[in-house]
Amino acid sequence: MSLYSQRGVSAQKEEVHKATEKLDKGLYPFAFCKVYPDFLTGDADWVNLMHADGAGTKSILAYLYWKETGDASVWKGIARDAIAMNLDDLLCVGIYNNILFSSTIDRNKKLIPGEVLEAIIHGTQEFFDILKAFAVNIQFLGGETADVGDVVRTIAVNGTMAARWRKDRLVTNEKIKTGDVIVGLASSGKATYENEYNSGIASNGLTSARHDVLHKTYGARFHESYDNALDEHVVYIGPHKMTDPVSVEGHPPTTIGKLLLSPTRTYAPVMKVLLEEHLEKIHGLIHCSGGGQTKCMKYLHSHFRIVKDNLFEAPKIFQLIQEASKSDNREMYQVFNMGHRMEIFTNEKEADSIIAVSKQFGIDAKLVGRVEASDKKELLLKLGSEELVYHS
Amino acid sequence: MSLYSQRGVSAQKEEVHKATEKLDKGLYPFAFCKVYPDFLTGDADWVNLMHADGAGTKSILAYLYWKETGDASVWKGIARDAIAMNLDDLLCVGIYNNILFSSTIDRNKKLIPGEVLEAIIHGTQEFFDILKAFAVNIQFLGGETADVGDVVRTIAVNGTMAARWRKDRLVTNEKIKTGDVIVGLASSGKATYENEYNSGIASNGLTSARHDVLHKTYGARFHESYDNALDEHVVYIGPHKMTDPVSVEGHPPTTIGKLLLSPTRTYAPVMKVLLEEHLEKIHGLIHCSGGGQTKCMKYLHSHFRIVKDNLFEAPKIFQLIQEASKSDNREMYQVFNMGHRMEIFTNEKEADSIIAVSKQFGIDAKLVGRVEASDKKELLLKLGSEELVYHS
Repeated sequence: MSLYSQRGVSAQKEEVHKATEKLDKGLYPFAFCKVYPDFLTGDADWVNLMHADGAGTKSILAYLYWKETGDASVWKGIARDAIAMNLDDLLCVGIYNNILFSSTIDRNKKLIPGEVLEAIIHGTQEFFDILKAFAVNIQFLGGETADVGDVVRTIAVNGTMAARWRKDRLVTNEKIKTGDVIVGLASSGKATYENEYNSGIASNGLTSARHDVLHKTYGARFHESYDNALDEHVVYIGPHKMTDPVSVEGHPPTTIGKLLLSPTRTYAPVMKVLLEEHLEKIHGLIHCSGGGQTKCMKYLHSHFRIVKDNLFEAPKIFQLIQEASKSDNREMYQVFNMGHRMEIFTNEKEADSIIAVSKQFGIDAKLVGRVEASDKKELLLKLGSEELVYHS
Repeated sequence: MSLYSQRGVSAQKEEVHKATEKLDKGLYPFAFCKVYPDFLTGDADWVNLMHADGAGTKSILAYLYWKETGDASVWKGIARDAIAMNLDDLLCVGIYNNILFSSTIDRNKKLIPGEVLEAIIHGTQEFFDILKAFAVNIQFLGGETADVGDVVRTIAVNGTMAARWRKDRLVTNEKIKTGDVIVGLASSGKATYENEYNSGIASNGLTSARHDVLHKTYGARFHESYDNALDEHVVYIGPHKMTDPVSVEGHPPTTIGKLLLSPTRTYAPVMKVLLEEHLEKIHGLIHCSGGGQTKCMKYLHSHFRIVKDNLFEAPKIFQLIQEASKSDNREMYQVFNMGHRMEIFTNEKEADSIIAVSKQFGIDAKLVGRVEASDKKELLLKLGSEELVYHS
């Protein structure tokens, strides 16, 4: 039994897919999000979507950091996580504007005081204000905060978006074809619209990362920060304290805690430009969230061999997680993004102009791979001399 | 310190109101839900809303019942709770149709298997199918299920709705005036669209009800069903087992567990008729959810004295909770609905036609009170010879 499964998490969500298989899958089976007819106005040229996601167990990292340092501002990052994990999924069907947002916060009131709620809720509006400057307009229409300490050990922060969009401005992944190249947009670094170095961690794989990286002392001091029914051998088995210093080349000194809590980068300012000015060049869009570099396999409309042989060097945080967890590359690449979290399928001759747009926003980008003909759906990751093959 | 606060719950949500006080309150400050301009299409005659709510700690009751009986269908009721708690809030601004829904399920995968997810997700679609027969159309646009056992002890089931609605078909509570009467729609009984007796419990106050009603044995057997940091003196201190028989006059024999788990009734079929055919008669609408019979105080646009002197007899489940908890009426009426969960403010001469519509659906209804002039906002509940006064 893997550590992953011993901790009650699954990167592939088999049970969830089974539970939802009878539901209406929407208009475009290979699109990154489920897309439905325009129920709201009945216009055949438009569609409706709702999308839900959250900060997951990253909220526990914020809790530990806040308890150790007293710095409640770290919760603003959790607000961003709950937004960006939704927004960047919507970007992948082409939606970047005119979005409605509602939040759902479930807390243990005895551990999570009002100041934390304020940081999350104000952090939500602040993030929308930042995006507004890039003409990415998201309206904060409220939400629910429930005191449910018998259900939630600390806090769960989720968000839901609703949108209406023109059908002819959607990206449905149906244009992906043999010969396409894949442009990857870096997950780490410092974008022009970010205040500090982003580790690239996003909000996936954080249960593993937290237990594998952080030291036993966290389990001993914070019983509320994990499922007490877990085998002790999988709980906080790492070498690090949150405050351990880390150096990342080209950026100011930081800490393990900061890298783990780095708010999920949104690519919305970049993607807005690409979707407005280069839509016809975009054959497919994949947000490498849960499933990491294997995520693309779920959205292939035909038998293709995806080859990624020019991946980014794994950012520091993933190196630290891998050292701590002793995971092999096969596992790391199917849990974490490992370097780019947005991938754009396009014609080879268009790639340079796409890369140039990303770099204008301070986000590194490059050709990471290509689409080849195949008799089945398969994925090849080439990491130096190592070759990893995945099948869907 | 009250039992309520020792258990980490609050009926009045002071901290939440403080955290959200700087946010945009929407177009109608006294409307039951926040209502915003029509961002989705920019039409000045229309508005947009999103609304989030969930089953709260009622999911724990489902967990206990399912563990004891093996009956996973009880989870379908939790799906209904997460829907009805949203839908009936939307009814109070006049919205009953053409609604989008997305669910958010956070679970502990080690305790909550796929069959539970299936019951919840299928139960969601089944409930929408029932409502569709009444021309109450809600579209299930998907959602997120996350495995977050380090955050969630068992399972949290939440839902979010989005709607677009005509401004001139809204109920904003601004028409409430001195001399209005209040029609209450019963929370218990068996509506024509319900399969069995509904206890009236809904999804509020369930933390208290569960601990006050259920026996210590549940705490001993199910550590995962409560915050283990709570003082043992407030954890499962009641006299009952889930399977204890209960008789309710005029209905088949049932059990304590069934009454506690009775799915939140939606008034949507009734309200659809009233909102389509009698909108001009409706001066205000209040869903007596969290805050119980005091809920109306939050939505008064002026100084009124609300007098409710003809309330329904408290349904059996509330009598059982009160006996078990030894709570006084003041507390019971500000936590639970105690007999009616929907109240309609109208002219006295219109009340009979409203009551007649409700009764067509098998839901008892009557004049429960009236609006009087006052120099402050106050509420008087007359319960026989007892008078309870609340101020906002």
